[in-house]
Amino acid sequence: MTRFQNIAVVGATGMVGSTLISLLEERNFPVQKLYLLASDRSAGETISFHKKNYFVESINTFDFTKTDLCFFCASNDIAEKFAPIAALHGNVVIDKSSYFRMDPDVPLVVPEVNADALRTLPKNIIASPNCTTIPLAMALKPIYDAAGIARMNIATYQSVSGSGRDAVDELAEQTAQLLSGKPIKPKVYPQQIAFNVIPHIDAFEENGYTREEMKVVNESRKILDDPDLLINVTAVRVPVFFGHSIAVHLETRDDLSLKEALKLLGHAPGVKLFADPTRYPTPVHDAAGQDVTFVGRVRKDISHPKGISFWVVCDNVRKGAALNAVQIAEFLNQ
Amino acid sequence: MTRFQNIAVVGATGMVGSTLISLLEERNFPVQKLYLLASDRSAGETISFHKKNYFVESINTFDFTKTDLCFFCASNDIAEKFAPIAALHGNVVIDKSSYFRMDPDVPLVVPEVNADALRTLPKNIIASPNCTTIPLAMALKPIYDAAGIARMNIATYQSVSGSGRDAVDELAEQTAQLLSGKPIKPKVYPQQIAFNVIPHIDAFEENGYTREEMKVVNESRKILDDPDLLINVTAVRVPVFFGHSIAVHLETRDDLSLKEALKLLGHAPGVKLFADPTRYPTPVHDAAGQDVTFVGRVRKDISHPKGISFWVVCDNVRKGAALNAVQIAEFLNQ
Repeated sequence: MTRFQNIAVVGATGMVGSTLISLLEERNFPVQKLYLLASDRSAGETISFHKKNYFVESINTFDFTKTDLCFFCASNDIAEKFAPIAALHGNVVIDKSSYFRMDPDVPLVVPEVNADALRTLPKNIIASPNCTTIPLAMALKPIYDAAGIARMNIATYQSVSGSGRDAVDELAEQTAQLLSGKPIKPKVYPQQIAFNVIPHIDAFEENGYTREEMKVVNESRKILDDPDLLINVTAVRVPVFFGHSIAVHLETRDDLSLKEALKLLGHAPGVKLFADPTRYPTPVHDAAGQDVTFVGRVRKDISHPKGISFWVVCDNVRKGAALNAVQIAEFLNQ
Repeated sequence: MTRFQNIAVVGATGMVGSTLISLLEERNFPVQKLYLLASDRSAGETISFHKKNYFVESINTFDFTKTDLCFFCASNDIAEKFAPIAALHGNVVIDKSSYFRMDPDVPLVVPEVNADALRTLPKNIIASPNCTTIPLAMALKPIYDAAGIARMNIATYQSVSGSGRDAVDELAEQTAQLLSGKPIKPKVYPQQIAFNVIPHIDAFEENGYTREEMKVVNESRKILDDPDLLINVTAVRVPVFFGHSIAVHLETRDDLSLKEALKLLGHAPGVKLFADPTRYPTPVHDAAGQDVTFVGRVRKDISHPKGISFWVVCDNVRKGAALNAVQIAEFLNQ
């Protein structure tokens, strides 16, 4: 039974929004009426969906009684202001911003991991996790269930598309300017991102971690329903266009052999495992444009008797954002 | 008292060799006679030193009785074949290859960390460590001495210059080709390195780690003289030209406050600390072309009562290779 018929996509002209619209088409998501919403600035643009052109409307004047499902692919500000209005008018809201993620009345969901959290929707709002947390949770889940996780050390290699279209343009422009010997002027990032790595994503917190790092900690805890899970993160922006990578060094509670870990990861829903220890996924070669989360370089940690380390790569715009939101809607539609 | 007078640089035309020659000039290293050696292929090239041109000679026909100090900036094969010959003829050899690093009769030295290992030279050969191990050891040493280190989790962000001049050319060429829509063909690296990250440096070992990762483990143990030190590494190549970065997550044996850690790192020889928790070094902005090792993002690990995490950046060609070798010679010359 199809539950939703009339759908709005908020932030339709952004990178996640436009990818989400493509995914709705690609996956034949049942849509009766589609409304594409954005800021006043983008209103009037046209976007094609199933060979039909749609005008982008301003969210400021939209009547949310016309829809029953809203994908929010916009900023925290937009989510804060409009998601409650949409929900009040009877919509289910699936929000990719971080605004509602830690709200106890808002489920934070990766369908392959904790779809059961969708059973009750106290606010009619569902949050989609951070683009690093999603693939991480997918790889962690089977291990967590089988052997528990005592602690994790994580270092990320995050692509610029995680910061939106302006950041993708900035990397391309800076790179071209540097190759032709022209001076560059960073705008999206605090420093040159071309041919550089920057250990600074989102604002710094009091404890010395960045907000991005704390998102991975807090969201992983909520998704795995383990508020005490010990996680230490260094989050780093790298000059890659699409695809986030994560070096995961984890310690299980119970013994877990390499063979068992490989078996668990090999059967994890939505995960493609590189079981051969000499093969591994990378953003360009494997993840960009793909829907699954890739895991490779699985090995017993030589420094810890219960340590397992591996490497995770995922298209941050697709499974890390747009696809996860669509999959939540598909689950609700079942 | 100056000990060495006649000096050979083996691998003089390579990236580390040519940087080393510049450093000898820049630092006014006392040189009576200088011999620049390379393979037959590079013999005949000229290199300037203190405004005088030197012809590059073939190592195959060189008479090592003419020198008393040889810098080897070449491959393992060259070190294996020629370093013992040079040593036999009365030279002190300072070798940057990995060939002799784990030999118990060869000191493995970062002068700021373990210069005392230079007191005896059973083989007249000294090894300079891996370009990731050097800056890591510099940051670890004061913490190790003050509080001990129980275990470390490390993830690296290593620049292409660590693979030599061909790799620097490959990143530049691939980037230009991709920006102009031309097909690329990886040569130095197993996959496209431009706009990508590759968790594969050097060959894979039986235990699932790469040789590069095991170098960091084994060399850190030797330099800190702690054969049981527990270290877990993921080593990753990133599209950066110069400067290796390292996310260090360590657990001390004794309690160490953030304030104490900052004080120790602030006084570490050869280390420049970014003490402000909202500032941090990057390869492009800080490390490239510089001699010191940069440390920033020092923070108490929220996942471990004795955890300290930080971020290390260093010019891998200078302090990570050429400069460290020159500093070893300077120490011996004192």
